[in-house]
Amino acid sequence: MYVIQYNDDIVVIDAGGMFPDESLLGIDLIIPDVTYLEENREKIRALVVTHGHEDHIGGVPYFLKKLNVPIYATRFTLGLIELKLEEHRLKRDTKLVPIDADSELEFGEIKVSFFKVSHSIPDCLGIVFHTPEGNVVHTGDFKFDLTPANNQYSDIHKMAEIGQKGVLALISESTNAERKGITPSEQMVGSHMLEAFLRATGKIFVSTFASNVNRVQQVVEACLETNRKLALLGRSMVNVVDVAIERGYLHVPEGMLIAAGEIEKFAPERVAILCTGSQGEPNAALGRLASGSYRDASIYPDDTVILAASPIPGNEKDVSRIIDNLFQRGAHVIYGSGSSTGMHVSGHGYQEDLKLMLTLMKPTYFIPIHGEYRMLHHHRMLAESVGVEKGNTFIIRNGDVVDIQDRVARQTRSVPAGDTYVDGVSVGDVGEIVLRDRRQLSEDGMLVIVLTLSKRDQRIIQGPDTITRGFVYVKESENLMREINSLVKKTVNDLQEENIRQWNVIKQNIKKAVGQYLFKETKRKPMILPIIIEI
Amino acid sequence: MYVIQYNDDIVVIDAGGMFPDESLLGIDLIIPDVTYLEENREKIRALVVTHGHEDHIGGVPYFLKKLNVPIYATRFTLGLIELKLEEHRLKRDTKLVPIDADSELEFGEIKVSFFKVSHSIPDCLGIVFHTPEGNVVHTGDFKFDLTPANNQYSDIHKMAEIGQKGVLALISESTNAERKGITPSEQMVGSHMLEAFLRATGKIFVSTFASNVNRVQQVVEACLETNRKLALLGRSMVNVVDVAIERGYLHVPEGMLIAAGEIEKFAPERVAILCTGSQGEPNAALGRLASGSYRDASIYPDDTVILAASPIPGNEKDVSRIIDNLFQRGAHVIYGSGSSTGMHVSGHGYQEDLKLMLTLMKPTYFIPIHGEYRMLHHHRMLAESVGVEKGNTFIIRNGDVVDIQDRVARQTRSVPAGDTYVDGVSVGDVGEIVLRDRRQLSEDGMLVIVLTLSKRDQRIIQGPDTITRGFVYVKESENLMREINSLVKKTVNDLQEENIRQWNVIKQNIKKAVGQYLFKETKRKPMILPIIIEI
Repeated sequence: MYVIQYNDDIVVIDAGGMFPDESLLGIDLIIPDVTYLEENREKIRALVVTHGHEDHIGGVPYFLKKLNVPIYATRFTLGLIELKLEEHRLKRDTKLVPIDADSELEFGEIKVSFFKVSHSIPDCLGIVFHTPEGNVVHTGDFKFDLTPANNQYSDIHKMAEIGQKGVLALISESTNAERKGITPSEQMVGSHMLEAFLRATGKIFVSTFASNVNRVQQVVEACLETNRKLALLGRSMVNVVDVAIERGYLHVPEGMLIAAGEIEKFAPERVAILCTGSQGEPNAALGRLASGSYRDASIYPDDTVILAASPIPGNEKDVSRIIDNLFQRGAHVIYGSGSSTGMHVSGHGYQEDLKLMLTLMKPTYFIPIHGEYRMLHHHRMLAESVGVEKGNTFIIRNGDVVDIQDRVARQTRSVPAGDTYVDGVSVGDVGEIVLRDRRQLSEDGMLVIVLTLSKRDQRIIQGPDTITRGFVYVKESENLMREINSLVKKTVNDLQEENIRQWNVIKQNIKKAVGQYLFKETKRKPMILPIIIEI
Repeated sequence: MYVIQYNDDIVVIDAGGMFPDESLLGIDLIIPDVTYLEENREKIRALVVTHGHEDHIGGVPYFLKKLNVPIYATRFTLGLIELKLEEHRLKRDTKLVPIDADSELEFGEIKVSFFKVSHSIPDCLGIVFHTPEGNVVHTGDFKFDLTPANNQYSDIHKMAEIGQKGVLALISESTNAERKGITPSEQMVGSHMLEAFLRATGKIFVSTFASNVNRVQQVVEACLETNRKLALLGRSMVNVVDVAIERGYLHVPEGMLIAAGEIEKFAPERVAILCTGSQGEPNAALGRLASGSYRDASIYPDDTVILAASPIPGNEKDVSRIIDNLFQRGAHVIYGSGSSTGMHVSGHGYQEDLKLMLTLMKPTYFIPIHGEYRMLHHHRMLAESVGVEKGNTFIIRNGDVVDIQDRVARQTRSVPAGDTYVDGVSVGDVGEIVLRDRRQLSEDGMLVIVLTLSKRDQRIIQGPDTITRGFVYVKESENLMREINSLVKKTVNDLQEENIRQWNVIKQNIKKAVGQYLFKETKRKPMILPIIIEI
């Protein structure tokens, strides 16, 4: 999420959601912290969304619950946003404004215009913010594909024009700033897809991101060429394809689509299946197909499975597990990029794409975004290589502010920002403490030690009883348990003799004694939870 | 671990350890289940180790604790094994027999000979088992490097001779069966290393596996060329280099090595540092250097950091996190394995290497090992492409047995086998139940609900009190807690009226009621632990 502010007018760009890595135990989604925006809610004029990928719209519902501002996006992007709003029952109360590359808007003193960019989802925009200080350009996610599918090209002429008029600051994505050369064209996938379809004898399963409509279109073309029906598996695949067809971004011949239930009715060589799960999610369609637990369809020997997406960093293991299962079912599995058989091309520009954007825009100041630090670093190098002055590039962190005054940019201050965790339905109630506990619990489990003391003389009336979870098999560790209990008894009695009666002290000592003993015996540090009842 | 058995003679090959992925919460190491061997302990003649990598020797100490058999390995491999035995105080009671490629041994009716193979650690062996049925060859891990460092070549002539004499079954590793072409030579790394050293202005940090002695040797050569002292950071780096020098596998000029404490005493351009942590381990030397928390040395702008190892699948994220930190410190970071600047080559043969091995050995039967299923599958294809008959390849799982009788091989039965988990000091006491608990705890944490009932009439005397960990911030969830307690009260009272007094029933109902309520409210499923005290 990025924010453009001029005096008392604020325009927000994108409201993404990020999926957590394993270290964030139990967290379902990460969304931006919008404290600063809440403090300036009266200044916010609009949320403008560049395109419909999760990391740009995933946070929209949560954002709206805090800040109900009108949303501006292209028709396809709005379609995907609407799916989310329906889930969260927010559609009725939200103002959605469809725009296109020719739209021109005014938000207070900020004028906004757009330009088409090519990416791995239809209808993507770059944004120009015209301010009295000068023009600021946000590229959105992009690549230059000169032979795009479905006419989703990057509008080089308009970009050149924007650059000619002068760009004060360029904000550009850096995902592939480490990759040399220029991004291969989506057409490459199309031809490889067709070859695979022509070679295939049995059923064909293609797994890709539902939102990659151009790729879906190429699957449709291949089905047409090879006279196959097409079935859709997986909720998001069905939903997104619906939106794409209904809004005219995807063209499927009458009668080609069949229901999942009909797959087995056709001869294998007459059917293709588009399914979710390209990232190895065990419960998505492909994952269940690979494990043989999908109701409507099964993978038989000689079926072909095409993974038309490359694993996002962190998903490699899940994906390769699924590939293994597919091979074990005897399927022909086509995976991996690589120009020879490649079934995937990136939607993000490589170094030459990024340099072309920089060259077209000729910005005075440059702010590389969207990527790990090393990618931003490489993007800065690229910028300097095409003429951006040293020192005019700002590598910023979440919350950092770049102030531009009298055409001079400075990065001095920052505002509250960061990650907000969504766990289940509640937002922001899980933080470091809770996560730290989850981490300890996940490593070595826990022990609950219950004992009942008499109010009068602190004698132990009952217990201690020890309950463990996630620590060891109790039945195989009776000695350990016996030791713990006698250790607790001893600890409590010793304290009694010293006449120490504060619960917190008793609990601390129990924790300490048992903790040290267990670490000595097992080298583990389970969470220890002493519970004292006084009667 | 593989087992060759002829009648009443058993020879065990390797005893590795595997590092668990995130799904095995808290598990430190995975070792082979040796039930079958324990049942046949009197038949075991030897443990023969092909080379000194963790996944081939990591399980040795645990193996010895159950089965104290003599270990046969080359001098370098033995050196690494001894380090482990010292840790586990097993050295005194273990019989270690040094061997080399020319050794010939007899274990009952099984004669054993060896051949040199090239890999990413010195002194690797392939093994030939001469049995009355015929010869079985185990390749160990290998590649063909015609210009190896330190003369660690694969002995093609001896392999050819073995093949000529006839190989009944070949057991060959499959790690890179998916990779086309032939493995690049270690020499490539050497030249790139030297270039980087010649270009570098500040300190040079090189991170690689300590056991990759040939690469360490190339770093030493580069230091010599560029007149730099060399420091070693990280316990395993120090230990392994000691073993390598002492046993003559690594040659370091007099006076080149300096202590970690001396690094800052020399001019930056006169020092190089070899450190552990190439897999992104946050607590290894490189990880601590990257986060600026290493006592003896720091990374300054213009220092060069070379990652001379590629991340093992699953470690990508940790490694890239460290690369980011290094860039943020202003270091020149050289990483990735492109042939242009590549600082790493694989120690495992690519497809052409594997085909060459198959061609040299001309086996009747083929057993691809060491790799995910898809790699074994590809290796089978390679074998058939060079003449192994269809149907003569056996893709086996842990515990599967390939029986060969009258020169006919069958895979019909299997023996107890699988993974044994090591958690802390104890082996095998953590299984699925404990892990399942840890998983639940890690996802949503837990609630302990304590209430005291009167023996007489089951009245609630105290409580219910609810303690949570890893679930939510209690102070922000007082309503939730209040709700839970009244829900528990109600549940208990209702049961009383029905005169139900069994604890397990009461507990079950509490779990059910609270669980449903919490899922409705929070969409989370914490572990619920009702504790009832009766007075």
